[in-house]
Amino acid sequence: MNLEDLPIRDDLRGMKAYGAPQLDVAVRLNTNENPYPPSERLLDDLALTIRREAAELNRYPDRDAIELREELAAYLGHGLGRERVWAANGSNEVLQQILQAFGGPGRTAMGFEPSYAMHPLITTGTNTTWVRASREADFSLDPAGAVAAIKEHDPDIVFLTSPNNPTGTAVPIETIEAVIEAARGMVVIDEAYFEFARTGTPSALTLLGRHPRLIVTRTMSKAFAMAGTRLGYLAAHPAVIEALLLVRLPYHLSTVTQATARTALRHREDLLKDVQRLREERDATVGWLRGRGLEVADSDANFVMFGRFPDRRKIWQGLLDQGVLIREVGPPEWLRVSIGTKDEMSAFRQAMENVL
Amino acid sequence: MNLEDLPIRDDLRGMKAYGAPQLDVAVRLNTNENPYPPSERLLDDLALTIRREAAELNRYPDRDAIELREELAAYLGHGLGRERVWAANGSNEVLQQILQAFGGPGRTAMGFEPSYAMHPLITTGTNTTWVRASREADFSLDPAGAVAAIKEHDPDIVFLTSPNNPTGTAVPIETIEAVIEAARGMVVIDEAYFEFARTGTPSALTLLGRHPRLIVTRTMSKAFAMAGTRLGYLAAHPAVIEALLLVRLPYHLSTVTQATARTALRHREDLLKDVQRLREERDATVGWLRGRGLEVADSDANFVMFGRFPDRRKIWQGLLDQGVLIREVGPPEWLRVSIGTKDEMSAFRQAMENVL
Repeated sequence: MNLEDLPIRDDLRGMKAYGAPQLDVAVRLNTNENPYPPSERLLDDLALTIRREAAELNRYPDRDAIELREELAAYLGHGLGRERVWAANGSNEVLQQILQAFGGPGRTAMGFEPSYAMHPLITTGTNTTWVRASREADFSLDPAGAVAAIKEHDPDIVFLTSPNNPTGTAVPIETIEAVIEAARGMVVIDEAYFEFARTGTPSALTLLGRHPRLIVTRTMSKAFAMAGTRLGYLAAHPAVIEALLLVRLPYHLSTVTQATARTALRHREDLLKDVQRLREERDATVGWLRGRGLEVADSDANFVMFGRFPDRRKIWQGLLDQGVLIREVGPPEWLRVSIGTKDEMSAFRQAMENVL
Repeated sequence: MNLEDLPIRDDLRGMKAYGAPQLDVAVRLNTNENPYPPSERLLDDLALTIRREAAELNRYPDRDAIELREELAAYLGHGLGRERVWAANGSNEVLQQILQAFGGPGRTAMGFEPSYAMHPLITTGTNTTWVRASREADFSLDPAGAVAAIKEHDPDIVFLTSPNNPTGTAVPIETIEAVIEAARGMVVIDEAYFEFARTGTPSALTLLGRHPRLIVTRTMSKAFAMAGTRLGYLAAHPAVIEALLLVRLPYHLSTVTQATARTALRHREDLLKDVQRLREERDATVGWLRGRGLEVADSDANFVMFGRFPDRRKIWQGLLDQGVLIREVGPPEWLRVSIGTKDEMSAFRQAMENVL
């Protein structure tokens, strides 16, 4: 028997499972991971914390993750409390819950591509219809064009990724507000990479007070260097959190996940120092690539999109042959490199020299 | 603004969030948790394991949880390998993934009530239509009646809980096979409580070789005393696992969850000794309740359903007033008590004496 013989949903037939290749190479700059491992201090704290919290592992976790949400709210600032914050297993699950509450059959979600590939995947995975709008040729978002697209399609949910993935640039706050004002439904600003934004970039969190249909999503995978923890979260009006409580699976967030996330939050000063190092390395990478005559999108993230290569697969493979794995993703002729350590970026530059 | 003002899905309007009250009382016998906390040996091992695995917490987890699935397969036996085993955040997420792959709009899932309340909830949460069939008055499943219901409604998915929750009794393997043979679609046997079954009860795992549309789900929440870990899993034909790979969220299972589950599996001999103690305590509880002249369903689980009480709320409240929390769930006039430690069950019996 094969997959084709099973009574799977028709819209899944012929699909391939999502995911970047997990290849075992020396320099992995393909999934926007933070290259800095947890400090010994954090690991010691984590081992002690887990040992203590695990003493009740026979009991279900706090179903509403009260303490974690309180601490995430304190980290976000802007006067937020736990009643405006929600957390789940990665921002993927956060997004899925948003779609289960506000999307579904007969409803639509819109995004401006190129953008994060999981938005359309989770949209269709929840039987919501995906409406594809476009960014400009330079990957920016024209406010008038965005408003016109929203007026035309009247989506139930609008996704805006800022800083955008895979292109890297943040959306101006005025454009974000124009989108919120034009939309009838929910507006999700995906700020997974916000901590890496260039100085002076305002967060959509500053708009929460005025816009009850606004949801701002974040993750601990990037700035907090906790991709293995799978902790995504969001801030929104308290009524939005109540809506998510209706669709979340009971006890979705394990005791160990809650404890690990809270441990990382205690060490945030150390972790955010690494963010500063990555921003500097990012700016240097943008400069170097431009110095080589390449086109590079402005980056507010921990990755850089650069081009153009009529045969981008050849460049990608040429780097991989030298032990440097980047990502063949986004618009044709462009490639994306995640920002690694100083040594990893040096290896990337050397490999690029050889390939070009 | 209130929840009612938000553009949530119409079928969510007026709904209440699911979940047993999490009350802080001395004796908690309401959510079928295992009363035995992890041993000091397990906790030491866990702290060391997490400290080691967390050193790469900046990286995404193994997306396919290869080692964990291999070890779960070895635990299940029956010649299973990792290609026939899948794991997710609690059996809730396992069930949701099954419904995303094989259910959805225009499709139906059927269950025989009274049974586990999450089956219809996750069914409708994935926009699948729930078809309610019934067990007999004594909560058993009549094979001819079950086959007739399946022929009549032709569901895409059939759920059978064995041992059943909240009634406690296992379904005979011949009935399970009759259901599988009658069904056109997938058949999910939810064996969350299987390790507690009375001696000689065969698992539906014994049918896997002959029935490629059979899925057997399990959990580490009960027998493994790991409710806080949120680790559910299933065994099925390899093509079923391939189907689930199409709908799972990428990196759904965190590094810490995988490490915690693998630690528990290493200590399974100790953990399964506690299962034996709970089975004995369960049989004693059944005997005691029957000795008091009450009706009690045969139990293959770590809980017992007993009745009948024209005003069951009064009994439930009377126990709670004495610091003993049980569950008001399932058919009217019946109550469910989870099996706790010897001391907890003694407190339960004393409180019952006072209430009756």
